Amino acid sequence: MKQVCFGVDIGGTTVKLGLVSQEGDLLEKREFPSSRDLAVTFDDIAANIRQVMDSFPDAMCIGAGVGVPGPVLEQSVVRGCVNLGWGDTNIAQELGCRINMPVKVENDANLATLGELWQGGGKGCRNLVMLTVGTGIGGGVICNGRIVAGATGGGGEVGHLPMPFRPDWQCSCGKHGCLEVTASATGIIRAAREYAPFCEMEALTAKDVYDAAAAGDENARRVVDEAGSALGMAAAILGCVVNPEMVLLGGGVSAAGRALLDPVEAAFKQNVFPPCGNVRFALAQLGNNAGIFGGAALFFTQSA
Amino acid sequence: MKQVCFGVDIGGTTVKLGLVSQEGDLLEKREFPSSRDLAVTFDDIAANIRQVMDSFPDAMCIGAGVGVPGPVLEQSVVRGCVNLGWGDTNIAQELGCRINMPVKVENDANLATLGELWQGGGKGCRNLVMLTVGTGIGGGVICNGRIVAGATGGGGEVGHLPMPFRPDWQCSCGKHGCLEVTASATGIIRAAREYAPFCEMEALTAKDVYDAAAAGDENARRVVDEAGSALGMAAAILGCVVNPEMVLLGGGVSAAGRALLDPVEAAFKQNVFPPCGNVRFALAQLGNNAGIFGGAALFFTQSA
Repeated sequence: MKQVCFGVDIGGTTVKLGLVSQEGDLLEKREFPSSRDLAVTFDDIAANIRQVMDSFPDAMCIGAGVGVPGPVLEQSVVRGCVNLGWGDTNIAQELGCRINMPVKVENDANLATLGELWQGGGKGCRNLVMLTVGTGIGGGVICNGRIVAGATGGGGEVGHLPMPFRPDWQCSCGKHGCLEVTASATGIIRAAREYAPFCEMEALTAKDVYDAAAAGDENARRVVDEAGSALGMAAAILGCVVNPEMVLLGGGVSAAGRALLDPVEAAFKQNVFPPCGNVRFALAQLGNNAGIFGGAALFFTQSA
Repeated sequence: MKQVCFGVDIGGTTVKLGLVSQEGDLLEKREFPSSRDLAVTFDDIAANIRQVMDSFPDAMCIGAGVGVPGPVLEQSVVRGCVNLGWGDTNIAQELGCRINMPVKVENDANLATLGELWQGGGKGCRNLVMLTVGTGIGGGVICNGRIVAGATGGGGEVGHLPMPFRPDWQCSCGKHGCLEVTASATGIIRAAREYAPFCEMEALTAKDVYDAAAAGDENARRVVDEAGSALGMAAAILGCVVNPEMVLLGGGVSAAGRALLDPVEAAFKQNVFPPCGNVRFALAQLGNNAGIFGGAALFFTQSA
């Protein structure tokens, strides 16, 4: 009998849910709104899981792997999801009792990293780091094939690495100068606004800045280089701590492709401890589906 | 039958070898010179192991866990030991064929961290980081009870974290400004020599600098504070990457006790991502025996 698994990615506005085969095929995908009301969200997830299973009567479902935007303990309890207004929630229990199958839970960014390891840009790796560069910077760390969740679910929070570039800029976490304030899309826009012509543009995106740099604008180049330096130094830090074989860049800003990768790789080489320098840099491949694949990988690749 | 295991710590000048019970008792310890001649070193280790076993006829030895000063792959091959003049060496094979029992190998600093986790300052932890501050700075990272060795055996090389304090000081690794050049005993002495009266003292130790700081010398205080800031920032970095529950400080400089711990902890709190801030700081407890206990722990605590 064909083994399958659900991957469920609970976000601040939507839930993405997919049925994935052991071979890594996404058999069906659904998307619906998440709710600040816990019971509503879990009822909706359970109803969708039942409906999808009805279309696959010959498949044996071994569980549901769930990603949530918050720190997760022991693959079951999320310690609050700010974006959803949830407090401490035992998701494994809440969902498990509704669907009668095993449920494992992880932080969404860590789970996306595991998804990329299993079926995306990091396929074949055992030691992988992902930096997800969007409005903020998230990420995940995988050592010897397993997610580093840490003591309180804060493993892989690479967006909050202390960095020397913008010591006066406050981060959403309360600290100053985190990687996230320097190199996220938000940080790139903020830095660009120090210069003409960006200071006068009402709507400005990180893509505009990358495009201007590519077109030869020196100020844009400076901003893009600083973001690359910060991300490369972060990768060098991760290099000597967990010594990955690969660093993946994902998130909205990774649409810049080589224009993002090249300065990051250059700054990495400049800062890394040489014996840890043998690292491939690449782009994440699964986009918004990374969490779904990661959820399935919790069952297909992570032994208890 | 009582289960026992050998822990073997191969250093640049001596081999430390101990027989350890499953309960964590060090039943016998020996120390003898290491040799640049591989065969001599392994013959000596094998001979000592046989002699020790003869004194414990009722014990069942389940293996030997070996630490070496170099990067280790797959718990067997060390990729060169600079201090010993060894090239790539399959230690598991070299020693295993001489003693007819399973051999597992790890980097010495990682192994010492595992020893502290099992029977030392980190007892009861699952997520632990150790910073070993001596002539250089070594360390180890343990996530979910397991050593983070990394893709090429360079996991836990925390002495080479890029740091913003001494950007012009070159490290032995070739880079500039590593944690090691800032906060090791060597770095502390170098920094102190910028000031009177230390610039004129022929023999100067890190202990002298800590003693002078304790006695109220302002220049010494400045040096000690900078080292503490660097170590605390390193701990904050490790905090958001692997989210440990405890950070241990070991090595020669840790003899300074609270005079070392206090500034490190203060700088940690200032730099850490708040959700990863719940960390206990303590001193390593096993001293030179940490590697022996770590070797035994490879068999007693690390499932395959």
